[in-house]
Amino acid sequence: MRGVVLEAAGTVTVTEREHPRIVEPTDAVVRLAATCICGSDLWPYRGLEPADHLPMGHEYVGVVEEVGDGVRNVKVGDFVVGSFVISDNTCEICRAGYQSKCVHAQFVHGTIGTQAELARIPLADGTLVATPGRPDADLIPSLLAVSDVLGTGWFAAVAAEVGPGKTVAVVGDGAVGLMGVLAARQLGAERIIAMSRHADRQALAREFGATDIVTERGDDGVARIKELTGGLGAHSVIEAVGTQEAMTQAIRATRPGGHVGFVGVSHGVTIPGEELFFSGIHLHGGPAPVRRFLPDLIQLVWDRKIDPGKVFDLTLPLEQAAEGYRAMDERRATKVLLTV
Amino acid sequence: MRGVVLEAAGTVTVTEREHPRIVEPTDAVVRLAATCICGSDLWPYRGLEPADHLPMGHEYVGVVEEVGDGVRNVKVGDFVVGSFVISDNTCEICRAGYQSKCVHAQFVHGTIGTQAELARIPLADGTLVATPGRPDADLIPSLLAVSDVLGTGWFAAVAAEVGPGKTVAVVGDGAVGLMGVLAARQLGAERIIAMSRHADRQALAREFGATDIVTERGDDGVARIKELTGGLGAHSVIEAVGTQEAMTQAIRATRPGGHVGFVGVSHGVTIPGEELFFSGIHLHGGPAPVRRFLPDLIQLVWDRKIDPGKVFDLTLPLEQAAEGYRAMDERRATKVLLTV
Repeated sequence: MRGVVLEAAGTVTVTEREHPRIVEPTDAVVRLAATCICGSDLWPYRGLEPADHLPMGHEYVGVVEEVGDGVRNVKVGDFVVGSFVISDNTCEICRAGYQSKCVHAQFVHGTIGTQAELARIPLADGTLVATPGRPDADLIPSLLAVSDVLGTGWFAAVAAEVGPGKTVAVVGDGAVGLMGVLAARQLGAERIIAMSRHADRQALAREFGATDIVTERGDDGVARIKELTGGLGAHSVIEAVGTQEAMTQAIRATRPGGHVGFVGVSHGVTIPGEELFFSGIHLHGGPAPVRRFLPDLIQLVWDRKIDPGKVFDLTLPLEQAAEGYRAMDERRATKVLLTV
Repeated sequence: MRGVVLEAAGTVTVTEREHPRIVEPTDAVVRLAATCICGSDLWPYRGLEPADHLPMGHEYVGVVEEVGDGVRNVKVGDFVVGSFVISDNTCEICRAGYQSKCVHAQFVHGTIGTQAELARIPLADGTLVATPGRPDADLIPSLLAVSDVLGTGWFAAVAAEVGPGKTVAVVGDGAVGLMGVLAARQLGAERIIAMSRHADRQALAREFGATDIVTERGDDGVARIKELTGGLGAHSVIEAVGTQEAMTQAIRATRPGGHVGFVGVSHGVTIPGEELFFSGIHLHGGPAPVRRFLPDLIQLVWDRKIDPGKVFDLTLPLEQAAEGYRAMDERRATKVLLTV
């Protein structure tokens, strides 16, 4: 089958990969309907993470083609959405809602690689969720978004304790930040401040529910958030970048007792203990336990209450994946959908 | 009046200080019944924080001697317990329960200095809480403990989301750590693991409710906590030291999705963003908003349901404060009460 491989930093190929087959009785093989490129794929693409013949892709929707003897919750022919982390969904950590840290957790990225025609998904019962039926074609981008980018933005909002009456600031106007805006809106936030200096992303942020746009960054951005919040800072801040600047900005823009939800994959970030101590904020984040949110988010999409698929602003066939990576790397695209 | 001054690192004197008087209409002057030395007083004593003629002390109980015209909640003759941070208890931050970050917050340490005969307490209505009546003498140490060491240990337990069914690990066997054990017990924890290698503190920890003692530190201590928790780590970890080793130990001893409550005043600590990201834990702490807990904790002491005063293992007259500092610095005493 065809699949995307990052041969080395900057070198994306679409090549023949081994046809996935059932190995364990808990496996399923899924024929992908669509997949996409994640902001986090850019870290190895840019040489900021190891990249040596990596099978790429960890977001996926598609039809179950084959299941192992032990699979109970999904069956051949089901249309499924999966999480970017394999989980059994039965261990104590999963039951507490942290499926991305399941005792049997395995990252799809770099091993399974769902930028491909097919994928073998281990622990299918604990990782995949079937949609209520075969989705209309126009729902597929939104269902695909649930698999990571929306699930991650949603987790960030939950981790930041977004809720009614709250003011939320979102650091990062990439796809995850924009999904954080959408999540904050759905979770009832009163005011949603998107930090962005790109007109197209500002527009999308407003469409997803942002009430205010802040174009300043760093200390100036923090000062602007303080101005907008009576000098106190936001109740909830979503950090959706993963750099030192973004984390510092998030911590400083949060009021004492407030919450930072951070989902940008941390690269070279250090948090000074003394500043954190005297800030009095809550800090929580990490790889999103998307599986926790899959049933509810699939339903919201199915009922057409949310349209996260709008975050895809470029669609290409799988064979043109390399161009998709270039477009995202050069910020010509926010998020690229690959048709299979 | 007599008061303790840290002239320079290592040099404690008891000297004549200016007699406190009402300055603002919201002030009260309190004649102290007892005061004490805090573990955090050792930072400047040891030269790890600036120390230049610092009026010392921030824990206090006593009788209101005089109030300004604007004071409504306490009156002359009331026996009061105060927080170590002055707060108005009316601003938005206070109302959210973060009085230690009140928009009018002021640290008692280093300015007011309650290791003294009297203290002027600004914003008396928002800082002091009167006891239900004049306490019996034997209650005074426990009421004094409420003022900081218990309030801080309690906040750590609340920040660590201690509750029924939870396994709690406490890093640090100083007075705050021991109060964290007491708080965890009161908050219904199922299992309380105290990390301590001192027989006397282990005994006190057991008396306050510890179910297990771990003597190992660092990576070995983490491994032991994991062993005791089915390989997962504790649900809740209290960090009551403030060093890099203690914070690292706390983060690594916590299960994914679990909570670290950190109240050790952070000194030279840096938290690696990547480790925090992949840990999936919650991190919250800082100077405890003791004022939030004062009414409930005073009542628990008043009803003789808790006896936090047991944490004082040396009592000296104010004039012998220097010996008290030495005893704590040399770990001959866990916590020193000064009679006034």
